[in-house]
Amino acid sequence: MKNTETNNNPNQHQVKLIPLGGLNEIGKNITVLEYKNDIIIIDCGLAFPEDEMLGIDIVIPDFTYLLKNRDKIRGMVITHGHEDHIGAIPYFLKEFNIPVYGTKLTLGLIGNKLKEHAIAGNLITITPGNIFKLGVFSIEAIRTTHSIADSVCLSIETPAGIIFHTGDFKFDYTPLHGQRMDFHRLAELGNKGVLLMLADSTNSERKGYTASEKTVGIALENIFRETKDRIIIATFSSNVYRVQIIIDAAVKYGRKIAISGRSMVNVINVATELGYLNVPENVLVDINKTKHIKDEELVIITTGSQGEPMSALSRMAAGDHKAIQIKKGDTVILSSSPIPGNEKTISNILNKLFEKGADVIYSDIADIHVSGHACEEELKLMHALIKPKFFMPVHGEYRHLRQHAIIAQDMGLSKEKIFIVKVGQVLNLTKNNVVVSKETVVSGNVMVDGLGVGDVGNIVLRDRKLLSESGLIIVVAAVERGTGIICSGPDIISRGFVYVRESEDLIDSARNAVKNRLDQCQSDGIKDWSALKGAVKDELRSFIYEKTKRNPVILPIFLEV
Amino acid sequence: MKNTETNNNPNQHQVKLIPLGGLNEIGKNITVLEYKNDIIIIDCGLAFPEDEMLGIDIVIPDFTYLLKNRDKIRGMVITHGHEDHIGAIPYFLKEFNIPVYGTKLTLGLIGNKLKEHAIAGNLITITPGNIFKLGVFSIEAIRTTHSIADSVCLSIETPAGIIFHTGDFKFDYTPLHGQRMDFHRLAELGNKGVLLMLADSTNSERKGYTASEKTVGIALENIFRETKDRIIIATFSSNVYRVQIIIDAAVKYGRKIAISGRSMVNVINVATELGYLNVPENVLVDINKTKHIKDEELVIITTGSQGEPMSALSRMAAGDHKAIQIKKGDTVILSSSPIPGNEKTISNILNKLFEKGADVIYSDIADIHVSGHACEEELKLMHALIKPKFFMPVHGEYRHLRQHAIIAQDMGLSKEKIFIVKVGQVLNLTKNNVVVSKETVVSGNVMVDGLGVGDVGNIVLRDRKLLSESGLIIVVAAVERGTGIICSGPDIISRGFVYVRESEDLIDSARNAVKNRLDQCQSDGIKDWSALKGAVKDELRSFIYEKTKRNPVILPIFLEV
Repeated sequence: MKNTETNNNPNQHQVKLIPLGGLNEIGKNITVLEYKNDIIIIDCGLAFPEDEMLGIDIVIPDFTYLLKNRDKIRGMVITHGHEDHIGAIPYFLKEFNIPVYGTKLTLGLIGNKLKEHAIAGNLITITPGNIFKLGVFSIEAIRTTHSIADSVCLSIETPAGIIFHTGDFKFDYTPLHGQRMDFHRLAELGNKGVLLMLADSTNSERKGYTASEKTVGIALENIFRETKDRIIIATFSSNVYRVQIIIDAAVKYGRKIAISGRSMVNVINVATELGYLNVPENVLVDINKTKHIKDEELVIITTGSQGEPMSALSRMAAGDHKAIQIKKGDTVILSSSPIPGNEKTISNILNKLFEKGADVIYSDIADIHVSGHACEEELKLMHALIKPKFFMPVHGEYRHLRQHAIIAQDMGLSKEKIFIVKVGQVLNLTKNNVVVSKETVVSGNVMVDGLGVGDVGNIVLRDRKLLSESGLIIVVAAVERGTGIICSGPDIISRGFVYVRESEDLIDSARNAVKNRLDQCQSDGIKDWSALKGAVKDELRSFIYEKTKRNPVILPIFLEV
Repeated sequence: MKNTETNNNPNQHQVKLIPLGGLNEIGKNITVLEYKNDIIIIDCGLAFPEDEMLGIDIVIPDFTYLLKNRDKIRGMVITHGHEDHIGAIPYFLKEFNIPVYGTKLTLGLIGNKLKEHAIAGNLITITPGNIFKLGVFSIEAIRTTHSIADSVCLSIETPAGIIFHTGDFKFDYTPLHGQRMDFHRLAELGNKGVLLMLADSTNSERKGYTASEKTVGIALENIFRETKDRIIIATFSSNVYRVQIIIDAAVKYGRKIAISGRSMVNVINVATELGYLNVPENVLVDINKTKHIKDEELVIITTGSQGEPMSALSRMAAGDHKAIQIKKGDTVILSSSPIPGNEKTISNILNKLFEKGADVIYSDIADIHVSGHACEEELKLMHALIKPKFFMPVHGEYRHLRQHAIIAQDMGLSKEKIFIVKVGQVLNLTKNNVVVSKETVVSGNVMVDGLGVGDVGNIVLRDRKLLSESGLIIVVAAVERGTGIICSGPDIISRGFVYVRESEDLIDSARNAVKNRLDQCQSDGIKDWSALKGAVKDELRSFIYEKTKRNPVILPIFLEV
């Protein structure tokens, strides 16, 4: 009886796919799959704050929908170990106690994070090629290639059909450890029939193919061969391939290696422990003990290739790194390309390094970096292999999703079978069909500031912005209880407005303006505090604007005594 | 007698060249030449604020050295009408009453600025090819090509020899009005002998040649021919050539033109009045009256190609432009390329335009923009023509100056004849020789915030930064005169810290912590206000940091009653 009832409800047949992040944004990738009483989650990443998110450390997904359905959640599956896919896991696991599935290196990196947050976590290792079940969902992880080792794409059998999620990928035919994408399995899946594909759109605007990581190895080796002095090389710590390339080149040309930057040290430790990095014995030296080593026999691997203000490379460029001083003759290599928004900061670092006499090599002038994401022709290859009935571009800003949709149309998919959706929208999947539901779920950005998760919202950000633009002026006065007579003050205190010592006249006249207005209020018999505060605020705002054309935050504070 | 005396002082023979801006930075170009009692100034530009200059509108040069030598100043010569060469003139002319020399369009644009600042100004028009004297200096303006019409380079005869200043330039062999750079005069100067060249370094890192403005015309015409709907095109208002290209294409394809954005309207008015723009009658329509015009018969020229937040294009993208709503079918062209630092903002605008259904064409995907600055091969041509004895790269960050120095070495100049100097350093020029002086002059950034010029310094900026990152907490209390007893408060008020309504517990415990500490102080007999304030600050800082890992600005305010 119960079955029949359930079957009468058409919603109960549907698989719901709910992206909670990663659409119309770079980062914060997370996708939810739901069928009846089962939910699984794919990835759980963070995003870095936008410029206007002043003081915010990171942004994580809104878990409201998952909290409401917490009993249904069977597990979380992670495609690879980049921050935009794993960075929110510690925050998630503070609320949920569910298993997290990932490959060995991915879990190694997650484990590191959990340790920092003092969370145990139930991490379950998966091996590409194996299939495991979470509730009704049958999940197969398939080896893929990306700028971090041990990446997988996911084929998920659901009651509605197969959902294929590429994760982040590129087609690297000559990856470093010879572990190619599992083309044959992709081809089999394509033949078997995939209902819906979700695919990485990061590089959809770029024509052609992304070059193999191997080309970077060749370029770096050329530099190592020609360089007679110290080499300092910055790259993404998570790119274990790249780090291996650098280690190999160093060993080949008889250089010792010193490592700078906390995340670089962490990743190298984890990757070495798990067998993803091969570091010969006696090659590593302590970053604080490089002085005894000849410049031509030393390579320093460092973080900071994106110009992060507190990173090791930034500190070297600014001249306040504890162990390493940049000097004439140094060759500094930035094996990276700027993430949009970081161009200016990176340029500042280049200038400082050049000023200190270093020779700086960056991706504008040498082939020392390749992207980890598929360009247009690779996306076409993925579409050709998987032949999905329906397609949803993921991982990208709107411009990237839109361009990926155009590519899918080029590949023969009709427009109505392609879904450019927003975070929180729901796709309903039934046998042979996918539609956008009218249902939406709570979703969005949760801002993390220090220990605070979600306690900074738009009002706080608006105040921070106002404070940052013109500072603030506080008017403080003591008012006698009962009589309403000002018995002390008004005093004026400012921060971030003008340098007070050089603007005493301005502050004095501001105080007088406020005083006159308060006297006026008193003779008008106005005693209501909020009216008084309003009057002070208005008076001071227009006075200050007239004199300075600025709009500082004005804060009247009355104390009753 | 006097002459002999003067001649005995070797300093009196020297021409001093003092850059007060434009080195190790983009913008704020200004160079001072001094000989005995004569000073002339070349250009007087602004720079846009760096990210860390919170709330700052613009940055202008420090005029301290000129103020000290105000009686010597004979005049100012302007190479062209871009903000980074003219933007500080109104601020300068508030302090100095000297003539400003420039070509017709340049002075038209300066005149516009002076009107806004209600300054009369003594503007004197120069014609390329003519020579005029300012004190001992004999100045010849020579026609050059750049992304604004009526640009000149300067050949300045001084007692030490000829100084040649390229201004901003590119070699455009097919400029729009057929007015090429005056190659023949450059060649003559090279033969005559130039002591020192100062040359634009903006594009020194780019190989090859910058394409002609004409190529943009061809690309835009192709788009106009193919487009059947409304066209909205954003570009730099000062690029009168580009605006002419757009007008010509509009006229050719039977479109009316509406103009949006204050600076675009201003420049088009000035340029049309002075004969630099040819706008046929009955082509312009009011931006508020475009509804009666068919989409296929309309072009809107707008500002905002750099993503400026309040610009017309930004407002269109955000959907709050008064007259223009972006709709499906619109073709939006960004005829520009991002100035470093603006990439992210521009990308946000692209996303919004795409989301609204527009087709967006930008320089990544079509040849609809060319730079105004010379690339490597053009710089070599300039060096080949001028053959300077000494060289000083200008207009660029350190990386650009350094690269230009390498190019000069390639052209045969020895290293010790090339001067990469800092703002405020002095070059001493004598017959046949140039040396860097040990003398430096006061120089640097003066920040303009509203009406305030220089009243925001590092302390105010530091406070703005702190406030922007974690907001502030104010502790306010009234203290009884004499007894030192707290008779009201402590109260806690915060802005930009947490959303108070959702963090009442935190604020309450913070108040208790402060109260306890004050009680402790009282029983310890501490009455000194600064000691009390210090105790409150320490207590609250560590309490808040422990609870939130944040560092808001903490401001204890005690009122004596």
